[in-house]
Amino acid sequence: MMKTVLCYGDSLTWGYSAESLGRHDFADRWPSVLAAALGPEVTVIAEGLNGRTTAYDDHLADCDRNGARILPTILHSHDPLDLVIIMLGANDMKPVICGQAFGAVQGMERLIELVRHHAWSFGRDEGPEILIVSPPPLCETANSAFAAMFAGGVEQSAMLASLYRDLADEKGCGFFDAGSVARTTPLDGVHLDAENTRALGRALEPVARMMLGL
Amino acid sequence: MMKTVLCYGDSLTWGYSAESLGRHDFADRWPSVLAAALGPEVTVIAEGLNGRTTAYDDHLADCDRNGARILPTILHSHDPLDLVIIMLGANDMKPVICGQAFGAVQGMERLIELVRHHAWSFGRDEGPEILIVSPPPLCETANSAFAAMFAGGVEQSAMLASLYRDLADEKGCGFFDAGSVARTTPLDGVHLDAENTRALGRALEPVARMMLGL
Amino acid sequence: MMKTVLCYGDSLTWGYSAESLGRHDFADRWPSVLAAALGPEVTVIAEGLNGRTTAYDDHLADCDRNGARILPTILHSHDPLDLVIIMLGANDMKPVICGQAFGAVQGMERLIELVRHHAWSFGRDEGPEILIVSPPPLCETANSAFAAMFAGGVEQSAMLASLYRDLADEKGCGFFDAGSVARTTPLDGVHLDAENTRALGRALEPVARMMLGL
Amino acid sequence: MMKTVLCYGDSLTWGYSAESLGRHDFADRWPSVLAAALGPEVTVIAEGLNGRTTAYDDHLADCDRNGARILPTILHSHDPLDLVIIMLGANDMKPVICGQAFGAVQGMERLIELVRHHAWSFGRDEGPEILIVSPPPLCETANSAFAAMFAGGVEQSAMLASLYRDLADEKGCGFFDAGSVARTTPLDGVHLDAENTRALGRALEPVARMMLGL
Amino acid sequence: MMKTVLCYGDSLTWGYSAESLGRHDFADRWPSVLAAALGPEVTVIAEGLNGRTTAYDDHLADCDRNGARILPTILHSHDPLDLVIIMLGANDMKPVICGQAFGAVQGMERLIELVRHHAWSFGRDEGPEILIVSPPPLCETANSAFAAMFAGGVEQSAMLASLYRDLADEKGCGFFDAGSVARTTPLDGVHLDAENTRALGRALEPVARMMLGL
Amino acid sequence: MMKTVLCYGDSLTWGYSAESLGRHDFADRWPSVLAAALGPEVTVIAEGLNGRTTAYDDHLADCDRNGARILPTILHSHDPLDLVIIMLGANDMKPVICGQAFGAVQGMERLIELVRHHAWSFGRDEGPEILIVSPPPLCETANSAFAAMFAGGVEQSAMLASLYRDLADEKGCGFFDAGSVARTTPLDGVHLDAENTRALGRALEPVARMMLGL
Repeated sequence: MMKTVLCYGDSLTWGYSAESLGRHDFADRWPSVLAAALGPEVTVIAEGLNGRTTAYDDHLADCDRNGARILPTILHSHDPLDLVIIMLGANDMKPVICGQAFGAVQGMERLIELVRHHAWSFGRDEGPEILIVSPPPLCETANSAFAAMFAGGVEQSAMLASLYRDLADEKGCGFFDAGSVARTTPLDGVHLDAENTRALGRALEPVARMMLGL
Repeated sequence: MMKTVLCYGDSLTWGYSAESLGRHDFADRWPSVLAAALGPEVTVIAEGLNGRTTAYDDHLADCDRNGARILPTILHSHDPLDLVIIMLGANDMKPVICGQAFGAVQGMERLIELVRHHAWSFGRDEGPEILIVSPPPLCETANSAFAAMFAGGVEQSAMLASLYRDLADEKGCGFFDAGSVARTTPLDGVHLDAENTRALGRALEPVARMMLGL
Repeated sequence: MMKTVLCYGDSLTWGYSAESLGRHDFADRWPSVLAAALGPEVTVIAEGLNGRTTAYDDHLADCDRNGARILPTILHSHDPLDLVIIMLGANDMKPVICGQAFGAVQGMERLIELVRHHAWSFGRDEGPEILIVSPPPLCETANSAFAAMFAGGVEQSAMLASLYRDLADEKGCGFFDAGSVARTTPLDGVHLDAENTRALGRALEPVARMMLGL
Repeated sequence: MMKTVLCYGDSLTWGYSAESLGRHDFADRWPSVLAAALGPEVTVIAEGLNGRTTAYDDHLADCDRNGARILPTILHSHDPLDLVIIMLGANDMKPVICGQAFGAVQGMERLIELVRHHAWSFGRDEGPEILIVSPPPLCETANSAFAAMFAGGVEQSAMLASLYRDLADEKGCGFFDAGSVARTTPLDGVHLDAENTRALGRALEPVARMMLGL
Repeated sequence: MMKTVLCYGDSLTWGYSAESLGRHDFADRWPSVLAAALGPEVTVIAEGLNGRTTAYDDHLADCDRNGARILPTILHSHDPLDLVIIMLGANDMKPVICGQAFGAVQGMERLIELVRHHAWSFGRDEGPEILIVSPPPLCETANSAFAAMFAGGVEQSAMLASLYRDLADEKGCGFFDAGSVARTTPLDGVHLDAENTRALGRALEPVARMMLGL
Repeated sequence: MMKTVLCYGDSLTWGYSAESLGRHDFADRWPSVLAAALGPEVTVIAEGLNGRTTAYDDHLADCDRNGARILPTILHSHDPLDLVIIMLGANDMKPVICGQAFGAVQGMERLIELVRHHAWSFGRDEGPEILIVSPPPLCETANSAFAAMFAGGVEQSAMLASLYRDLADEKGCGFFDAGSVARTTPLDGVHLDAENTRALGRALEPVARMMLGL
């Protein structure tokens, strides 16, 4: 029977290109690479929103960027799900949002709770597995707008992988450190170029396969 | 270049089966049929949420069912889009939501405005084409819970096709009457069985193809 | 010392013209007529929003039309106030909003409470006088969109004047029946033409003057 | 060990007196009677809010009357709980709120789901038992304000007991029909006089005792 | 006649035990101690919510933790009230919430205003007395999760007593410094053990008695 | 034909006097000075709210202070508009709100987008010109309450003029540096005395005249 994977993320999942200031080609985005690798028996849903936070409001946008407020709707739209991959936290590094690695961890914990306590349709008790992916650490950039917007983010984001790993262990979730296979571009210090986003998709395949029992 | 189609709808798009009280198989849902027909050069995104309304709150749910509040987020997640297919209005027929065909038309108008005034990323002015699809009219049912929940809906929903057609003309949108190719099941009076949801997907292919310029 | 009057209303206060489908000339709107009549020692603030309700949500709009949610902000912006004239209720007649004269009365009561319990700046205890104005009753119209949008409104709106008068008496507010000097236009059944909106401004002068102690 | 019972309700639980237009004496309110009957080993928390609905917004009030929006906060404040008694639905009978017995049932179902999916502190999985209490049917009244506010409520509220009983059975909740021991006063058609509210407290004792395993 | 006291607080009022990671026994919580001391002629309502802030949003929780948004509902539920004891501010010390003593003072001022401008039922003008209680200062802890969550809180919370005292004087409220009789436990740096929470209840008795005119 | 100018601001536009702790006389507020200078052919609307931010929530107030949430309503109330003057950002300097000049710039950008994407009534595409006015830099003050509330604001606000100028250039808006003609008073470090607010009105006349094509 077909399995379904939800990729819940931000611009790193959407496929923002710091070079073209547009969106990476479909084939270059990590959810597409993962989908191709997993084959036709798995539906992979890409739900990446530029600027999405874990659980913080951002009134600077013309849509709801609080990941915790939108997640229940998305879980219902794509129910039944077998695996939810959550890669969020980069936007939490903005000082006007939160600015602290510890805050992103608390937000991620909230998202896990939302999945675990979700009222799945038709009374099913069993929910999907959860895979937490820490975004690659921010790097220094000459782009002054991004440097200002993410002030302090290089240091804070470097702590995310280890904190997310502990959280995943505590909550019985899978964990993957995107920084182990991908690096952010110095063009803006936050995003992934095409090669790095593809690398992430390839690296997630075995983890997803294992968690899906394939 | 790849084209992208967003299918924004409710349980008729999600694929609710009144027989199994679960979800239709992937291959039977109309967005899947449409995707298969359009081929690999078109990405079709299925965004069907059980209970979604056009623009009305429904506090009976554990997620946001107001189609107008969620649409901007979804438009950003899947930007750039070439075509947005909106099939909503059935849940507006519930008296506790709205209960009037005219109310669904006003809600649909709001959704059109949201697409037209959306702030597309990177300053693009051009948005997607919009195809309005009127849901098939509700039919009588022996299911007393659904009959009560949608009291008056048989009469009101019968007016939707003609009202939506006028709105689409006025606003320069495409229009398709799902009732011309699909019938709701008497099992609950609202939903489509597998054959009818497949029929809808097949019927939408030529319309979508034309609007996409394929 | 200068006195300040706030005119808090809907399209009848904004000056919607059913003929031009635009806005009445500045000089024809009732707040302008009232301002001219009261002279330079009184500042008259026109705060009319198309579609504003007394205290009901309207998610069909791209802004907040719930009069009760916005009023506190407006009271602060124009503090200190000597008189608040509230003419609302016509949009409550829409069945998707409320559809009942009694509901408009309850909404008006809520607005009165908001003024009475407002936390005036700098600890002043004394708030402004309140003048309740019942909108002129809706009339029959050949405009089918408006007829549908306000179905039942002719009967319901005819009850507003007497219900508002009782409420004003009970709450110690002033009252004026706009229907005593102005009639809605059959062009859409709801709005006032230029002559009728001017008539309302002229008729409000003595009431406002008395309530302002001028 | 001490047991805790939460009484979540509206003015019938608060103890509104249609005679004094104030609050019944502490000893006359049904939660107090129940507490006295259950003895010092049971803490009974009275959480009755005038105007509270099951799950519908009421913007006519200066506080949040939507029972579904406030319940999670109250569940946390009084956690750990052994029994939640929910007596709501009378205010749903107001046409500006919902006006339909079937709508109240849907709202009650939402409240049950909120208790069942609540994230109890410290990772406990086990939540409290739920006892659904249908409010006594509204009766005819000469009070014109209440008659208008609850138009149609006599007929609709008469259906609540049987609909709530079915819901309770389906969801595995306890059920008690308050109309079997108490009658609403013709003074306003909605509320209970002191004798009737005491009677309700007495009648709930054995049910509560059984559900608490005492 | 019976007097009523509302204790509006956070986990210090709820009775969170850093030792058991559960809730203190009923008899050990300060509102229970206060109730026992005041005797049967006074009803003491314990409204402590883990994580409650003065007036700041916390989207990390599954319920509304903003004290200012919930207070009006609670005031109505327990109306008529003779005394409101507010002990909040500890959670404001979290950097993701506010992180500044001055911010807690502003939040406390907002809560005072909400009580003062509350629309008491049945048109009563007179509201309850207000007693501001500053939470005991945070202390150093080896618990790394709490240390991170409340980074900077030791210094900031030490300023609360003096700032709250000034605010209480300015606003005509009573004031009590909980730090004068209770110390936070080094187990997590924030909470009170059973002995300290009991001590607080005992110490509040004479203040409450005086403010209640007993 | 009459032109309309909307002045959207905070206490500097409302006319808060740090001396009287009240409101400057009508004739001294900058919108009044501007109106007098522009003459009877231009309607100038003063919409200044104490505490208004660009796009940040402030739950310490009893009304909505988030400039981005209220702006669409105000744009509709005063439609059609020829020029919108936005002078905001001072309240963003409060650490509990945002505390960073860069955050105010992002908020201002959001306001510009709201004007540009606004759905003007009757299908007009053309919106008003936008004039960004940077508030005069905060100065040191002996007022300890204001010094605490705006900690760090002297440095941050000094950056606003240059950042707003760049934003205005990028977005095709007009720009005026209020600090070039007005200074904040050391009485509280934030506000303008009567002479300085008049000076601002006089200085804005030629800019407004040019942008209005007068």
